[in-house]
Amino acid sequence: MVTEKDEAWGGTTRRIYEALKAQILGGTYGPEDRLPSTRALAAELGVSRTTVTAAYEQLLSEGFLESRQGAPSRVALLHAHEGVKPLPAGTASRSAPRPAAPVRLSRFGAALGDGPTWVPPQSGGLIADFRYGDLSAADFPAEAWRRSVNAALRRRQPRLAYDDPGGSAELRAALQAYLWRARGLRCEPNQIIIVNGSQQGLDLAARVLLDPGDRVAIEDPGYVMARRVFAAAGAEVVPIAVDGEGLRTEALAGLDAVRLAYVTPSHQFPLGGVLSARRRQELLAWSDRSGAYVIEDDYDGEYRYDIRPIPPLQTMAHAENVLYLGTISKSLSPMLRLGYLVMPPPLYPVFAAAKQLVDRHSPSLEQEALATMIASGAYERHIRRSRRSNGRRREALLAALKAELGDEVTISGADAGLHVVVWFERLDRTQEGELIARARAAGIGLYPISPLYGADDAGHRPDRAGIVMGYASLEVPQIGQGVAALAKLLGDWLD
Amino acid sequence: MVTEKDEAWGGTTRRIYEALKAQILGGTYGPEDRLPSTRALAAELGVSRTTVTAAYEQLLSEGFLESRQGAPSRVALLHAHEGVKPLPAGTASRSAPRPAAPVRLSRFGAALGDGPTWVPPQSGGLIADFRYGDLSAADFPAEAWRRSVNAALRRRQPRLAYDDPGGSAELRAALQAYLWRARGLRCEPNQIIIVNGSQQGLDLAARVLLDPGDRVAIEDPGYVMARRVFAAAGAEVVPIAVDGEGLRTEALAGLDAVRLAYVTPSHQFPLGGVLSARRRQELLAWSDRSGAYVIEDDYDGEYRYDIRPIPPLQTMAHAENVLYLGTISKSLSPMLRLGYLVMPPPLYPVFAAAKQLVDRHSPSLEQEALATMIASGAYERHIRRSRRSNGRRREALLAALKAELGDEVTISGADAGLHVVVWFERLDRTQEGELIARARAAGIGLYPISPLYGADDAGHRPDRAGIVMGYASLEVPQIGQGVAALAKLLGDWLD
Repeated sequence: MVTEKDEAWGGTTRRIYEALKAQILGGTYGPEDRLPSTRALAAELGVSRTTVTAAYEQLLSEGFLESRQGAPSRVALLHAHEGVKPLPAGTASRSAPRPAAPVRLSRFGAALGDGPTWVPPQSGGLIADFRYGDLSAADFPAEAWRRSVNAALRRRQPRLAYDDPGGSAELRAALQAYLWRARGLRCEPNQIIIVNGSQQGLDLAARVLLDPGDRVAIEDPGYVMARRVFAAAGAEVVPIAVDGEGLRTEALAGLDAVRLAYVTPSHQFPLGGVLSARRRQELLAWSDRSGAYVIEDDYDGEYRYDIRPIPPLQTMAHAENVLYLGTISKSLSPMLRLGYLVMPPPLYPVFAAAKQLVDRHSPSLEQEALATMIASGAYERHIRRSRRSNGRRREALLAALKAELGDEVTISGADAGLHVVVWFERLDRTQEGELIARARAAGIGLYPISPLYGADDAGHRPDRAGIVMGYASLEVPQIGQGVAALAKLLGDWLD
Repeated sequence: MVTEKDEAWGGTTRRIYEALKAQILGGTYGPEDRLPSTRALAAELGVSRTTVTAAYEQLLSEGFLESRQGAPSRVALLHAHEGVKPLPAGTASRSAPRPAAPVRLSRFGAALGDGPTWVPPQSGGLIADFRYGDLSAADFPAEAWRRSVNAALRRRQPRLAYDDPGGSAELRAALQAYLWRARGLRCEPNQIIIVNGSQQGLDLAARVLLDPGDRVAIEDPGYVMARRVFAAAGAEVVPIAVDGEGLRTEALAGLDAVRLAYVTPSHQFPLGGVLSARRRQELLAWSDRSGAYVIEDDYDGEYRYDIRPIPPLQTMAHAENVLYLGTISKSLSPMLRLGYLVMPPPLYPVFAAAKQLVDRHSPSLEQEALATMIASGAYERHIRRSRRSNGRRREALLAALKAELGDEVTISGADAGLHVVVWFERLDRTQEGELIARARAAGIGLYPISPLYGADDAGHRPDRAGIVMGYASLEVPQIGQGVAALAKLLGDWLD
């Protein structure tokens, strides 16, 4: 009899199983470490959850993992395994398991009940991890940041009290000047709200602007964490196709009752198109007509290579409904958790009130340190250096892809940013998960494009396997080694 | 003809007007500084918004303030005023006012549309500001914190990537040990979620556990920002009276369909009662029966004077539905924005997913610095010192109140925490706003208790004027001077 589990135990499952087992035995995951949830790993690898669950079940049945009710799988203490040296026990105390109470969640909570999709960075064991969003620690301006933080530590307040929910006055003044110099964006400091990374900006906008059932237009493919935050607010998310000129704005005209559009006009994520002048005007005219707000996410505006900087939408006429969203997650570090919203003035008071209600204000230390760093010029010096480093990585990646893979792949989105999209000419989209799992087993961290598309992507996505390759965390030699390993894997597989 | 404005122009309005004018002329507010919104100032002073608006209008008509559409009032450039030296102009660029677009908000947003209630700390001009929640900068362990932050700055990650939404592994391990030592609370590190201050813990709980229309039981009087966060989630907030033993739990039994109760069992905020053993058992039995969750806010568990530490609810049998909420806003600084939730294990995954969705994770720098400070023992040494400093402030306040005001006042909540509640025997509750405004005009920052009660407080609140006096930001001599000035004011007013 063929059971459901047997059916799931195909090539992809086996590769996931083998990659995880190798990582456990190699020490990437230590005893009692939690593994990613099946949901998170499935999303990361672009395969079905059943496939991942089958691999976990095999590891559980072999005693490599253990599982307790309501908790993700953990790596077992491996004493019992033949040939495996006993590893030191974790230091966590183990209280007796309590009886699980029935869990009662809100609609918002129920939609999240499977747990976070976060996956820890691979600290070893991979030739190259092309995860998008990670940055190289070597690029971080450690000394300038240390000086700025210490300057902030030395500053004495007369008393310790909650700060302005909108953010520190120094940082907002520094950002006002920076945005004018770097992006041609003019605003008043009291249009700026400091947030804990752009994710909090999206969440605040979702809560303040959207009721359950409201419609939000997003780019397809697009940023998954934006789609998730709007969906969690109960909004109906309407994916709009993108092409080489960005969002196909003509599709907006036919939609009723859209309250918000989320766009990445300077560098469409992930495909890389720049929203054309005509479409910018169409988008703003539509926003004016419909009263819909537009969130302009300028997530990587600092990184442009062969092209001129694109002024933000926010700077154009009729941009009264535009919320500009910036971040330092791509320029300094995603771990600092700082971003900023530039608000239309009438929305400032309600966003500041929402920020106060959700967490009072962003931490003062990072805000003051960043203000010092911007005001001293160190921030922009760092960005220039970082642009050069990432330019070298980009050149290395494009050269390696051309030399090693040539006509096997098509590349998009290489003009700007910290990633490219690579389409595989000889792999159709149903083989994407298999590609990711084979690469993982071969020590290459690749990430599928499929999760960035909505469910109904028929007609506007290529029928090939695609990946989003981030390069900002890798050194040049690693990039070449990773691409060479990928080329070998493809040759072995397909030829 | 007597207009509405004339009627509002009573003694309280005049005192607010005079206090603000003195602060503008004295430089507390500089040119182009924003004043608090009328809503915020009315809440702070415990007077009606009409009263504050009338004072602002007078200042506007006299040219001390200026106002632009959709923005709070600002201090005018005072060139035109006879006898007032022109002050330097602000550095903000002034773009032409844009036409205001119609503002369309969600239900959540509409409830916040009046702007934040935040009021900046008074940096000068007051004899003593008894605002609760502020701490003395002199108590801050600047050197230990600087060392811990610098240790965190020196730590090198292999790459810069988003951290675990639940928080840094080091901090959670350190908190696990600290909570056991300091509060007798046993938990696993993966029950702990690091949040941006307790406010974010409340907001996450409201979103994950409450749908619009769900009922939440809160203490009356109680913490205003908790009531606001539950109300903003669309919940029906049910105030339950408190007495000397804390929440009157017998009132819970008669309520249907309560999904959540918010309590401060170790030190009821603001009245100071400790939840009795019998009521703790009643609360947990009710939670077990009804399936309602309980948020235990241990906001100032570090500060106890003449009484034994009270073990948290979370440590008792049948506490499976208890979410324990802690903060460092009272022990280190409210500006650091760090707090923690200790979750029932089945709720951990959904709270971690919610935290990831709302802002990925709390900033790594403060988390690692706090972990270092706890692990090195410096955090607990600081708490012991801080407990002694605040003990001296408390003694000074109680002694001054006794010496200067004697039978004029009744005091509650002095056993623990960083504030006391003072009731005025000869002032009834309708005179509370007048007291606050008179005190402000005399240079004393006092804060009314009325906003801490729900609308229907009949039968359980004293029919006298009351104030919440925070003392943690003041030095001992200031406390005596403030109370002496208050006594003089009362004598001049009432005798």
